[in-house]
Amino acid sequence: MSAPAPERTQVAIVGGGPAGLMLAHLLRLRGVDSVVLESRPRDRVETRQRAGILEHGTVEALREVGADARMDELGMPHDGFELRFAGRGVRVDMQELTGERVMIWAQTEVTKDLIALRLEQGEPLVFDAEVLTVSDVETDSPSVRYRHGGAEHVLHADVVVGADGSYGPSRRAIPEHLLRRFERVYPYSWLGILADVAPSSHELIYARGRTGFALASMRSPSVTRAYIQVPNGTDPQSWADEAIWDELSDRFALDDRSFRLARGPITDKSVTPMRSMVTEPMRHGRLFLAGDAAHIVPPTGAKGLNLAVADVRVLAEALAEWFATKDERLIDAYSPSVLRRVWRASHFSWTMTTMLHVDPDGDPFDEQLALSHLHHIETSESARRALAENYRGLALGAV
Amino acid sequence: MSAPAPERTQVAIVGGGPAGLMLAHLLRLRGVDSVVLESRPRDRVETRQRAGILEHGTVEALREVGADARMDELGMPHDGFELRFAGRGVRVDMQELTGERVMIWAQTEVTKDLIALRLEQGEPLVFDAEVLTVSDVETDSPSVRYRHGGAEHVLHADVVVGADGSYGPSRRAIPEHLLRRFERVYPYSWLGILADVAPSSHELIYARGRTGFALASMRSPSVTRAYIQVPNGTDPQSWADEAIWDELSDRFALDDRSFRLARGPITDKSVTPMRSMVTEPMRHGRLFLAGDAAHIVPPTGAKGLNLAVADVRVLAEALAEWFATKDERLIDAYSPSVLRRVWRASHFSWTMTTMLHVDPDGDPFDEQLALSHLHHIETSESARRALAENYRGLALGAV
Repeated sequence: MSAPAPERTQVAIVGGGPAGLMLAHLLRLRGVDSVVLESRPRDRVETRQRAGILEHGTVEALREVGADARMDELGMPHDGFELRFAGRGVRVDMQELTGERVMIWAQTEVTKDLIALRLEQGEPLVFDAEVLTVSDVETDSPSVRYRHGGAEHVLHADVVVGADGSYGPSRRAIPEHLLRRFERVYPYSWLGILADVAPSSHELIYARGRTGFALASMRSPSVTRAYIQVPNGTDPQSWADEAIWDELSDRFALDDRSFRLARGPITDKSVTPMRSMVTEPMRHGRLFLAGDAAHIVPPTGAKGLNLAVADVRVLAEALAEWFATKDERLIDAYSPSVLRRVWRASHFSWTMTTMLHVDPDGDPFDEQLALSHLHHIETSESARRALAENYRGLALGAV
Repeated sequence: MSAPAPERTQVAIVGGGPAGLMLAHLLRLRGVDSVVLESRPRDRVETRQRAGILEHGTVEALREVGADARMDELGMPHDGFELRFAGRGVRVDMQELTGERVMIWAQTEVTKDLIALRLEQGEPLVFDAEVLTVSDVETDSPSVRYRHGGAEHVLHADVVVGADGSYGPSRRAIPEHLLRRFERVYPYSWLGILADVAPSSHELIYARGRTGFALASMRSPSVTRAYIQVPNGTDPQSWADEAIWDELSDRFALDDRSFRLARGPITDKSVTPMRSMVTEPMRHGRLFLAGDAAHIVPPTGAKGLNLAVADVRVLAEALAEWFATKDERLIDAYSPSVLRRVWRASHFSWTMTTMLHVDPDGDPFDEQLALSHLHHIETSESARRALAENYRGLALGAV
């Protein structure tokens, strides 16, 4: 189905998730060749449940590369979301506050469309390609050695992009002593469910309940996605379906009893730990990192996918400029410029996370700070606008 | 000089700091009698160095009671302030962002004017009055027993207001089991100096330097007030004058070397610990707490005096209404309504404190969060406006 992989390309892209795929498409539009190597089989890439809230800039990128048809048909544009705490709710009207909206469209669907488009174009995308080493990134002829179809292959390139996630091999090509690593592990996880029932709210609800965080989201008009804060190490199977619905019901409860949570058959349960990680720099010689390979954010701010797409939008411009003119200014600016956005998103995600979760190691002072922060967002238009701007995503260059 | 203290009044005010004095004046304007009992001698009350940044609402209150003449002559209205970090500065233009300014006018001067006015009016204000007990606050005839001039006295009142600071006796009249106490002790203190030299900047500068926080402020056009973050337990005398100037110089340094710190003779050195404390509720029966007696904030947000004045503005209205009509709605609303402002200020002060100090127990992730927050204030008008609104103070009823 995919074209035979060449032995040489301009940009070797390690990782066929949304970051790597989007980069390949953006580079193609700018006349730059690339090969995408993905370690997993196609069906696993296409079924991995992940985030589903696309910033305006991410939607723009999908339109630019022509992967927007199904999104426009099936995606759900949202003008706002709700924060719920102390038995009441406050709506954050993004459209009114910022003039922009977000799109609810699952990462799995984004990935499917980007893969289909790549294969349709006959451009190189290799699944089941296990990358063994990324070499010679300090020279002008780096290469990627990988195993595929029982044999070892070497891909030579001008540039290697590591878009292979937090545990991928690319980052190891940067000498340890040159990397700074920042990490925060939160003392709680998310138990997420998918359920065959229409969402109880037409917009997302982020709740700070008495016993912890809860999020009401959706995958489609008939599929509910919801999460509750649970202790780290929780086995998702230890939660009975009814117990999950009861807990969700309690955490979303409004004092005026106007909220009813619709229950239905739960089709999937999983637990996601909450952590934040940033590695700096995001470039070493001819190797550029993008997306999860360089940074992880907790899901509370829905920034993971959006950061990855922002990285490769900046990187595609920079590489295209460099291939066309050999001017190094944009590729030199890549790491510091995208890291500013990464830290903005990390700070925003930290704010959302600590404001909305009940810290098992926290004290009553922390709880009151969080409630006061939520109350401030309720009463101050400036605070609400600053939050909405972060949520819908800042324009490239604005961070 | 002061009138002889009566044995009975409508409102017995324990504490003759700015909260108690301002309340007495506001009550008088509303036709309510009060007696102010202050444990210290007049000269100690008048010379205690404290905050000096007055919110718009505090300035309004001083105007209302007629203690504004010297403030208008000698106070310094400020339209903005500067945040400094990573070798650069960002100005927060309060006037432009919020339409209001603040007034630099020391708490000692406010207190002097409020005392002088009270004595001029011949209204009861007793210095050296050591309050022993506040009694019968659960009945409709509470009383205050105090020692003055070698004898014990009892002051009977309809209402007692405890404005006697964090360690005063009033709060003890509330049964321990009814009080909730919230506290945060920060792992650093401020070493503050007064120096006989013109301020180096015409506005305040809050700096996150490499080695910690610094604040450049002023008492007058010829007196500099400045602070540096130091470890808890620091002896102010362990810092030589030159070492303080060197440290200030380093923490305020700009990459473009455009900032020069003016040095001069240091006339005062002191160390202030940084803590936050809130006790709830602020009313029990006929006892009302106001100011530091109920809440302490770290000085970073300059909110202590302003919160105290906001408390007594709300309380004066509520008591006047109750005395006039016996309608209890406003006095019942006192504690929850002022506590919302207290928590807003506590959260704001916590934000300013953690964003600008180097936490000796923190990790590099915390440092990057703080820098990203400062960078966000630099680049986002909404974030800057939300900060400016908190700094200049929110209107009564807006919290």
